[in-house]
Amino acid sequence: MKLQQLIKTHQLGLLFQQGKFGIEKESQRIDNKGNIVPTAHPSVFGNRSYHPYIQTDFAESQLELITPPNDKLEDTYRWLSAIHEVTLRSLPDDEYIFPFSMPAGLPPESEIKEAQLDNEWDVKYREHLSAIYGKYKQMVSGIHYNFQISDEFVESAFALQTEYSDKIAFRNALYMKLANNFLRYQWILVYLLAATPTVEAQYFGENRPLAEGQLVRSLRSSPYGYVNAPHVVINHDSLQEYVESLEHFVASGDLLAEKEFYSNVRLRGAKKVRELLEKGVKYAEFRLFDLNPFSPYGIELADAKFIHLFLLAMLWIDETSGQKEVELGKQKLYQVALEDPRAHTAFQAEGEAILNLMLAMLEDLSAPQSEKDLLQQKLAQFVDPSQTVNGRLLAAIEQTGSYKALGAKLAQQYKAQAFERFYAISAFDNMELSTQALLFDAIQQGLQIELLDENDQFLALKFGDHLEYVKNGNMTSHDQYISPLIMENKVVTKKVLAKAGFNVPKSVEFISVEQAVAHYPLFEGKAVVIKPKSTNYGLGITIFQQGVTDKADFAKAIEIAFREDKEVMVEDYLVGTEYRFFVLGDETLAVLLRVPANVKGDGIHTVRELVEAKNSDSLRGDGSRSPLKKIALGDIELLQLKEQGLTPDSIPAEGQIVQLRANSNISTGGDSIDMTDQMHDSYKQLAVGIAKAMGAKVCGVDLIIPGLTKAAEPSLRSWGVIEANFNPMMMMHIFPYQGKSRRLTKAVLKMLFPELP
Amino acid sequence: MKLQQLIKTHQLGLLFQQGKFGIEKESQRIDNKGNIVPTAHPSVFGNRSYHPYIQTDFAESQLELITPPNDKLEDTYRWLSAIHEVTLRSLPDDEYIFPFSMPAGLPPESEIKEAQLDNEWDVKYREHLSAIYGKYKQMVSGIHYNFQISDEFVESAFALQTEYSDKIAFRNALYMKLANNFLRYQWILVYLLAATPTVEAQYFGENRPLAEGQLVRSLRSSPYGYVNAPHVVINHDSLQEYVESLEHFVASGDLLAEKEFYSNVRLRGAKKVRELLEKGVKYAEFRLFDLNPFSPYGIELADAKFIHLFLLAMLWIDETSGQKEVELGKQKLYQVALEDPRAHTAFQAEGEAILNLMLAMLEDLSAPQSEKDLLQQKLAQFVDPSQTVNGRLLAAIEQTGSYKALGAKLAQQYKAQAFERFYAISAFDNMELSTQALLFDAIQQGLQIELLDENDQFLALKFGDHLEYVKNGNMTSHDQYISPLIMENKVVTKKVLAKAGFNVPKSVEFISVEQAVAHYPLFEGKAVVIKPKSTNYGLGITIFQQGVTDKADFAKAIEIAFREDKEVMVEDYLVGTEYRFFVLGDETLAVLLRVPANVKGDGIHTVRELVEAKNSDSLRGDGSRSPLKKIALGDIELLQLKEQGLTPDSIPAEGQIVQLRANSNISTGGDSIDMTDQMHDSYKQLAVGIAKAMGAKVCGVDLIIPGLTKAAEPSLRSWGVIEANFNPMMMMHIFPYQGKSRRLTKAVLKMLFPELP
Repeated sequence: MKLQQLIKTHQLGLLFQQGKFGIEKESQRIDNKGNIVPTAHPSVFGNRSYHPYIQTDFAESQLELITPPNDKLEDTYRWLSAIHEVTLRSLPDDEYIFPFSMPAGLPPESEIKEAQLDNEWDVKYREHLSAIYGKYKQMVSGIHYNFQISDEFVESAFALQTEYSDKIAFRNALYMKLANNFLRYQWILVYLLAATPTVEAQYFGENRPLAEGQLVRSLRSSPYGYVNAPHVVINHDSLQEYVESLEHFVASGDLLAEKEFYSNVRLRGAKKVRELLEKGVKYAEFRLFDLNPFSPYGIELADAKFIHLFLLAMLWIDETSGQKEVELGKQKLYQVALEDPRAHTAFQAEGEAILNLMLAMLEDLSAPQSEKDLLQQKLAQFVDPSQTVNGRLLAAIEQTGSYKALGAKLAQQYKAQAFERFYAISAFDNMELSTQALLFDAIQQGLQIELLDENDQFLALKFGDHLEYVKNGNMTSHDQYISPLIMENKVVTKKVLAKAGFNVPKSVEFISVEQAVAHYPLFEGKAVVIKPKSTNYGLGITIFQQGVTDKADFAKAIEIAFREDKEVMVEDYLVGTEYRFFVLGDETLAVLLRVPANVKGDGIHTVRELVEAKNSDSLRGDGSRSPLKKIALGDIELLQLKEQGLTPDSIPAEGQIVQLRANSNISTGGDSIDMTDQMHDSYKQLAVGIAKAMGAKVCGVDLIIPGLTKAAEPSLRSWGVIEANFNPMMMMHIFPYQGKSRRLTKAVLKMLFPELP
Repeated sequence: MKLQQLIKTHQLGLLFQQGKFGIEKESQRIDNKGNIVPTAHPSVFGNRSYHPYIQTDFAESQLELITPPNDKLEDTYRWLSAIHEVTLRSLPDDEYIFPFSMPAGLPPESEIKEAQLDNEWDVKYREHLSAIYGKYKQMVSGIHYNFQISDEFVESAFALQTEYSDKIAFRNALYMKLANNFLRYQWILVYLLAATPTVEAQYFGENRPLAEGQLVRSLRSSPYGYVNAPHVVINHDSLQEYVESLEHFVASGDLLAEKEFYSNVRLRGAKKVRELLEKGVKYAEFRLFDLNPFSPYGIELADAKFIHLFLLAMLWIDETSGQKEVELGKQKLYQVALEDPRAHTAFQAEGEAILNLMLAMLEDLSAPQSEKDLLQQKLAQFVDPSQTVNGRLLAAIEQTGSYKALGAKLAQQYKAQAFERFYAISAFDNMELSTQALLFDAIQQGLQIELLDENDQFLALKFGDHLEYVKNGNMTSHDQYISPLIMENKVVTKKVLAKAGFNVPKSVEFISVEQAVAHYPLFEGKAVVIKPKSTNYGLGITIFQQGVTDKADFAKAIEIAFREDKEVMVEDYLVGTEYRFFVLGDETLAVLLRVPANVKGDGIHTVRELVEAKNSDSLRGDGSRSPLKKIALGDIELLQLKEQGLTPDSIPAEGQIVQLRANSNISTGGDSIDMTDQMHDSYKQLAVGIAKAMGAKVCGVDLIIPGLTKAAEPSLRSWGVIEANFNPMMMMHIFPYQGKSRRLTKAVLKMLFPELP
């Protein structure tokens, strides 16, 4: 099968470079010394019988983190990162993830628990493996790299070639070529990427095959790794022969199941390999890769990219390996695996030839320079082995004393990193924090997630056959369309709420400045708010807190409001404190007080210093990427200071509250203070009723309340509704400045999936 | 009770002029000759047991049209107009509404049917009236004018006065003053507005009280009108005495019920007058007014305004009439009612004095000049009786021959007017046509309607206790919030539909011009559509119908699309015809074909003439106030003609279709053609499934179909989804250019109120 010419002639290069990518990563949970922990798989991850991302492999301590397949490798890597962050933040305080493939600090074999899965057969299979291979060998971890050739490429190439008349046969031949050529040249990846040069003595027990102090490239890929008995030889000459020989060894009892065949490539797409003949291979799983301890996720994105290019090359080259070449490849693999990682490889010339061929391929494919640079880096590593992962690793181990100590150190470092912006998911930081929080919970609880549109915060979530769509973290099928439309329109909101018997400040609407000013006598002496009818950003609002007494002031305020809208409202001003109630269904889940940006004096530091100190809180940042915002010292803040007779260099007295803003918005440095437990229940019930009156399931209700500890009375002096929000900011409640965190995103998931355990 | 000074001192003028207004109008259904029809109340109006707007009064033929109360008199008048339009368009073709209070063409008394109401007591009461007063007298119609003094005014005035310590007592005193002063001076309104100068001979039968040819001002308000027995005298000195004397005459059997007391003012707010003492009067009903035949609605807005000012004056003047003055007023009323309408009134001086007092009041209230002008007009009518309604009416009757003939003529004219823009409701023409159509159906079927926000097309509809909100005619509680969000985002729409197994054209998204152009080989030779990701107005779209063959053209199209959005899609172009499917719930209710603006040649007329002829269709207009738009002859149309080798002055051959636009939008003069019956059912089912996949209840689905008569096949060549719309234009289907009208708004109401009979 010759693809290269076909791709070049018919400009299939772009399709050829497309595909689907998935990564599975095994690793051990450890304590802070690097010892494997005896604890059960954390229950916070729900049930392993359905969890798509967080599973256990052989042992109870052995996490298996699985990305969903993606069209872009970069996205797969983002998922790998996200799943890691969720896992690391969900582990017990004293547990970490070991970054090496070879375990350390192994307990006695008898104490190693096979993964406690629900399925009896799964447990039995693991017990069988323990018996045949020993438990220690099963504790080795690695990366499995799944690659699916682009369907569109297969379609196009099939239509243009002449060798195959059946599309399935063509597809299977493509995968056989990919698999066999990979097996032929896999040693190259081991040379460049392997990271299991050594293992603790206890691993081999008395039968240690290596000399004292002997270092190798990859114990895991060597004959001392995870291999079948030597007489189990599967024929790779064709898929047909592959299927038959595999079935033979299962029938003979040499293998308990097809999956006990430990090839570095598995052809995927069916429960039994025989089905592949008819259904066709769906994707291939490459199982060669040692964990790279220098990456918190076990693999660097650049290396994942390199592996993709290597796989493309295995399809690109004209030769198609058969069983003979596969055998040769295995020999080379074993030889390279046991080479001294500090030395050049015996096959340097072949390695460089393949990499140069890849470079030529990139040229033909008009690949970006970055990919060529990546190839050049790898080429250089054939000349200088110290640049390989192993090379760098040995230096690091030497510095730390042992790979166990290095692993423990890195594991702690990676966990700390995962907590640095604990309110975010780094890989999805292009989305809003609320959506990130929802994603965190959904990953943790094992919902199947599809990012339908990241810019638009649009997700599909699935549990079994139950599909739900979510936008902005809380817009769902559970709300009626009409509810947000009601809330969007302040006039309609008030009419609807008034009709339902809730206290709303009275207001009068005007359609012209003249009309409004003519009605000035209606408002003279009253405390009123003048605002545009439908703006949402606080623009154009004037408050006469002490009552409006001057017609010219009134006219000015009216004019300002009309700049923002064609209609303007003059509304009663309510006296009291504004609280935000987050309602979900029949419950007020959180109550928040928002306080304008401020600092508290200590009699020692200047305002500027106090602001700096307050801004150093890890919750405070700029833009929309943190739950709280840094306090600025701009014109508005300086003016506010001036009104209090202060400058940034003033030193406020101890306990003195210095206000830096008049408005309480979180976006201008305000503080969010959780008051859920302090708020009288009657107000929480009111908020629920208000949401219900608008038919809303998820709703942010703003109430003005003079005293939060006494029960609500029916009069407008006791409380009033200011506004209702159909897209309430959940982050304010999840990560408040003061008080308890309220994990609202979990409640949203529970609403969508009440069947979640 | 002296209000004038209180209002002036405390600037209560604006509140004083506020209030609530309602109008009830009785009238007879007639044939084209002016004869009362014997037909039943039209069943299209649903059941009279709940209808808030369209009722029957005494007789089955006697319509009673009732506006809801409104804060602005102008709004009440709009409702009166709207209810009339709905009624007139709903009557049988050969029925009309008689514009006079005095009936004409009366059938023999035995043939007059009392209104066939569900409530047995209501029917019995009417039979009692027939027995006591005779049926003919009950057939007289008029206007009842309901006025509620502003609650805020009552509150403010009560707080500022010292005479009353109880608010209810104060409120009742206000209404007693209003009622008694009105009864004292009501003759003024009869002089100016009365319109029952004569009646057909048969009305009085043998006991005709008037001389042959005698004309009066108001038969209806005269002692020969609708009056109680002379000994039934109700004491107006106080509400207490009023209640007691009324109860006395009911107890004595002189009145069958309190409502048999035919005063020109009724105090409203309770089932029994006694309850008013404790609950307080809510509003007053003024029943004096003859139908003004010069208005299609029985009353002119200016006269309604005048009546309001007259009522204000009755509160404003210092005197408060008691029983003595009420009696005097009744005497004056009877005297004026029987005066010759062509002559000056005996009380001209008193009339002018009261109107001058009203003028002074308007001055004190800083009322607009238009109100003062109105007063001046009325003043002039005291000098020149021919300017009164009666004066003008007599001239018109003389011209036509009889008031019956005049009534028949006007009735036909008013009905024709109601059909002029049959797709609209004139009074609500500030709203979208779809909302107008929904309002039409809701008025016809008797839903209680509140216009929450006219600019925002926001309605509240109620049937019994069942409340629903509607925006834009079809946005309701029945749709999920997430559905329109899905439809708003084309990428998400396609992913969701593809996931559910529907045929969507494949597409690729790009975030930069460079990225898109680099992928040009993917599209070379293919028919594609290039479009911005989320625009909705067809902006920035380029179609390569024959396949894109030039990279520069492709790049140009990409660039144009990026001007409209930050993301651009390149999508497979589907071959076929686009149809719009309107789905509601489980059914496709309408299918529409939209055809670009065009004219059909006849071998005689020029393109310009053909366009003019087509534009004369009453469905075609400009702006958004008509269901179809006029075809323009602007630059784009001229260019389109040029491409066909034509100019506006060319004469196309008979049958030649001349296209004037490339796009099929209705907004640029396109034709809408109903294809519901022609479309194969399989496609209608598909559209329903597509709506369901997005969780949508109301949805406009655009499908591309090569052949509409054959069943849909599973392949993309048989059909494909282009787009789904959450705010589908219903008007296109309700008033298509060709084919059957599909009354979708009725289906929306049925969805919201399945309990509607």
